[in-house]
Amino acid sequence: MPAAAEISSPEAGNNHMVRSDDPEHPANLIPALCAKFWTLGWVTGTGGGCSIRDDDLVYIAPSGVQKELMKPSDIYVLSLSQNLAQSASLRNRVYLRSPPALKPSQCTPLFLAAFTRRGAGCCIHTHSQWAVLVTLILETRGPGFDREFRVNNLEQIKGFARGPGKAGNLGYHDTLRIPVIENTAHEEDLTEFLEEAMERYPDAYAVLVRRHGVYVWGDNVHKAKTMCESLDYIFQLAVEMKKLGLPWVTEIEPTVPTRGRP
Amino acid sequence: MPAAAEISSPEAGNNHMVRSDDPEHPANLIPALCAKFWTLGWVTGTGGGCSIRDDDLVYIAPSGVQKELMKPSDIYVLSLSQNLAQSASLRNRVYLRSPPALKPSQCTPLFLAAFTRRGAGCCIHTHSQWAVLVTLILETRGPGFDREFRVNNLEQIKGFARGPGKAGNLGYHDTLRIPVIENTAHEEDLTEFLEEAMERYPDAYAVLVRRHGVYVWGDNVHKAKTMCESLDYIFQLAVEMKKLGLPWVTEIEPTVPTRGRP
Amino acid sequence: MPAAAEISSPEAGNNHMVRSDDPEHPANLIPALCAKFWTLGWVTGTGGGCSIRDDDLVYIAPSGVQKELMKPSDIYVLSLSQNLAQSASLRNRVYLRSPPALKPSQCTPLFLAAFTRRGAGCCIHTHSQWAVLVTLILETRGPGFDREFRVNNLEQIKGFARGPGKAGNLGYHDTLRIPVIENTAHEEDLTEFLEEAMERYPDAYAVLVRRHGVYVWGDNVHKAKTMCESLDYIFQLAVEMKKLGLPWVTEIEPTVPTRGRP
Amino acid sequence: MPAAAEISSPEAGNNHMVRSDDPEHPANLIPALCAKFWTLGWVTGTGGGCSIRDDDLVYIAPSGVQKELMKPSDIYVLSLSQNLAQSASLRNRVYLRSPPALKPSQCTPLFLAAFTRRGAGCCIHTHSQWAVLVTLILETRGPGFDREFRVNNLEQIKGFARGPGKAGNLGYHDTLRIPVIENTAHEEDLTEFLEEAMERYPDAYAVLVRRHGVYVWGDNVHKAKTMCESLDYIFQLAVEMKKLGLPWVTEIEPTVPTRGRP
Repeated sequence: MPAAAEISSPEAGNNHMVRSDDPEHPANLIPALCAKFWTLGWVTGTGGGCSIRDDDLVYIAPSGVQKELMKPSDIYVLSLSQNLAQSASLRNRVYLRSPPALKPSQCTPLFLAAFTRRGAGCCIHTHSQWAVLVTLILETRGPGFDREFRVNNLEQIKGFARGPGKAGNLGYHDTLRIPVIENTAHEEDLTEFLEEAMERYPDAYAVLVRRHGVYVWGDNVHKAKTMCESLDYIFQLAVEMKKLGLPWVTEIEPTVPTRGRP
Repeated sequence: MPAAAEISSPEAGNNHMVRSDDPEHPANLIPALCAKFWTLGWVTGTGGGCSIRDDDLVYIAPSGVQKELMKPSDIYVLSLSQNLAQSASLRNRVYLRSPPALKPSQCTPLFLAAFTRRGAGCCIHTHSQWAVLVTLILETRGPGFDREFRVNNLEQIKGFARGPGKAGNLGYHDTLRIPVIENTAHEEDLTEFLEEAMERYPDAYAVLVRRHGVYVWGDNVHKAKTMCESLDYIFQLAVEMKKLGLPWVTEIEPTVPTRGRP
Repeated sequence: MPAAAEISSPEAGNNHMVRSDDPEHPANLIPALCAKFWTLGWVTGTGGGCSIRDDDLVYIAPSGVQKELMKPSDIYVLSLSQNLAQSASLRNRVYLRSPPALKPSQCTPLFLAAFTRRGAGCCIHTHSQWAVLVTLILETRGPGFDREFRVNNLEQIKGFARGPGKAGNLGYHDTLRIPVIENTAHEEDLTEFLEEAMERYPDAYAVLVRRHGVYVWGDNVHKAKTMCESLDYIFQLAVEMKKLGLPWVTEIEPTVPTRGRP
Repeated sequence: MPAAAEISSPEAGNNHMVRSDDPEHPANLIPALCAKFWTLGWVTGTGGGCSIRDDDLVYIAPSGVQKELMKPSDIYVLSLSQNLAQSASLRNRVYLRSPPALKPSQCTPLFLAAFTRRGAGCCIHTHSQWAVLVTLILETRGPGFDREFRVNNLEQIKGFARGPGKAGNLGYHDTLRIPVIENTAHEEDLTEFLEEAMERYPDAYAVLVRRHGVYVWGDNVHKAKTMCESLDYIFQLAVEMKKLGLPWVTEIEPTVPTRGRP
């Protein structure tokens, strides 16, 4: 971890920050994750992305690359504290390492919001079609009724942590609530709405973006990735349920089920 | 196979129990199977799992790991007879090997039920969306009519053994019946309902769990896996049939079909 | 190619018949094809299969194995002429090579029908869900109207040869006609109905089996596989069209399309 | 790059033109891309194809091969300027390299149209089922209303360049317009309609072909492939939206979204 004094300008390269033989190093892990996400349809056509925080260092996939072909040398690196100190809005970012000929991700301020406001260690942004369809289905409910995805009584809900500072995961009968924010013309402009949704939903680990996709974060890569998988599973299930006329929220009495046939 | 006297405490490691050059060794096979199941969407987001019994030794995938990244060193091992002797309810389990920093699977007592009550050699638990959707579709039929999945006149039904102690497999015109049990807040609490379903359906090799997934077992890995595949194929087909308004059970006269056009 | 006098009994092994360094050798090609078909959902749960004919020698995948794990040593070999000479019905087959501990495929007489009646070099049998759904959708049209799958005006139709002895492939405006036969309790009993369908449809390279799947053959592996792919593509498209209320057969005037907007 | 005087006849081989250790060489890239496209269902059953232009040299996948098995030695090469000089219609093509025993792609004149009229560096042709379904859904709108696919207010629209000579990409609120041309009996006959659609839609990077598929091009391989992915993503989304009764084009007021609940 370089001390502040050691921070070099992007021009200097700092290529050592993305060179490691450890497959768990963020610069190796982000390309491996993005390649996997590509096969899941989460980062089609350069959409979506992923960022990992290691203490004060933040590693971010670049904008506009074929995500299944990403290399460690494509990764941006910045210091979280340095950026917080320099810019309240996090818009004028200073990078410790900027790959030549690439552009930083427009998702950067949204990833940083998850790191600073939630202490997340990883944030994943997907363009999953199931996430988009869920927001479109909600949209038909009209303004004011379309800003929250709610589902309950599904085993996969147990895949979500109960909330920051709370022990354990959600239970089967708990209702999973994911806020939905409206999309903006510029991805960076989503930041304030994402942050506001984080405030309104202090236990949420994800925010849906209408007609766009979803942001999912977690304390570490393992938690962010497995919650992102569980959420995508639930979104796909919700779309299929809609096609079959099945409701997303049901009242199931938490009694012991009767045994055998009536 | 260690004699009872040789059984060590988990603390002692017993890492030799999961080290083998044989790809067919359960400690190698479980990670390979789980990686394959992940690509099928059966164990998304750490859900689902798999257990193999080799005589008295039971190998079990741990809880909460990314199933496509599992390693042999992640595998739990326990003695079936030792656990039966110590605990009728199988709730206070003694492990011959417990990987450090992992948690045993909540599915353990359900896997053990398949091993002790059916003499199974392998049990697979999936969170397949098709299995969940089938239980949701059944739910709309109302209490008492929703506790059994039934389908007939599909070639893939031949993929199921006729029942323990019975020779051969189901025929094309036979009806495949899979019991459905209600989900419980804690996975271990499913055990008694799973066992009860096994009693009511002595020929079944699978039990659906409402809004959760399916448990499938077989005499060995080959049989459990191929029946699990056939069942998932049938569940997906059943969901598509529902979308298309096609019934799951039909009366087809077992006469020789007429030839040519009428 | 062994002369008739060299044909050994199955007991003798004849393992050399399935040992080759050439990836194009049928004993290597069948496992590679079946592994690929498994990823396509064509041979789920040991269903389906594949056979290749090299002059008089016929290589066949065994029954009941996990198709994605098949090995060259699992392959059955028989002499087409020898079996024709010995048995008009092809039911009492003599194998040049029978792998120990495996069972010959019930599809064998159906594969042989493609080889003897059409001179095919390869025959593929899939349990594709799209094929099954197409036969189920047709079934709703009632007896006599459900025995032929018809589709036209799709570019992919060009993937089918026009018929044995006919030059070239079907055109865009041609109608692809695939006969549908009823399933039988035992797969071997399908043989006479398959053969009858081949007679009624002398130009067809495929026969659908109701609630079961499809048989597709071609002059060689390349043609059988690519027609099987095109057919599966069309079946999936047909199911989606049905869900969207779009007809499978349309009258499109073969005039030159008008240019620009009206 | 061979000078005109060095151009050899196809008979002479010119195999050096497709031999390179550089994975980015078009003769290596086309097979790698086609293998990837096969897994996406874009080039099923030998359908579809891909061409890359490197300055004056055009590399084209052959007709009728299994696209996931293609080799560099299967690639055709021609000179763009030489063909333009010799033939206004581009129908009598001269190849610098013709692989023996293969046939040139019927897509060749369509690929050349993208290279000559748009200066494209890569053109991809898919038979994606989603593209075909979109053209079928449009067809139900009746003549004159079915010649353009329109969608707006989707984040993935940002994946498209704004148009040749225009800076940047489409915005979230922009409407993506893809012209639809009618299919013809012979693929080469599509050329004039493709060219006409290019004229009518000077900013488009793709043309849908009714009941057939889509042509997508871009300044280079990266841009053509990522736009093709984004478009396929949008086509699949559009089909799912149709199933769910959701409109493809909506009026969303470009105001700043209100915060919090009403």
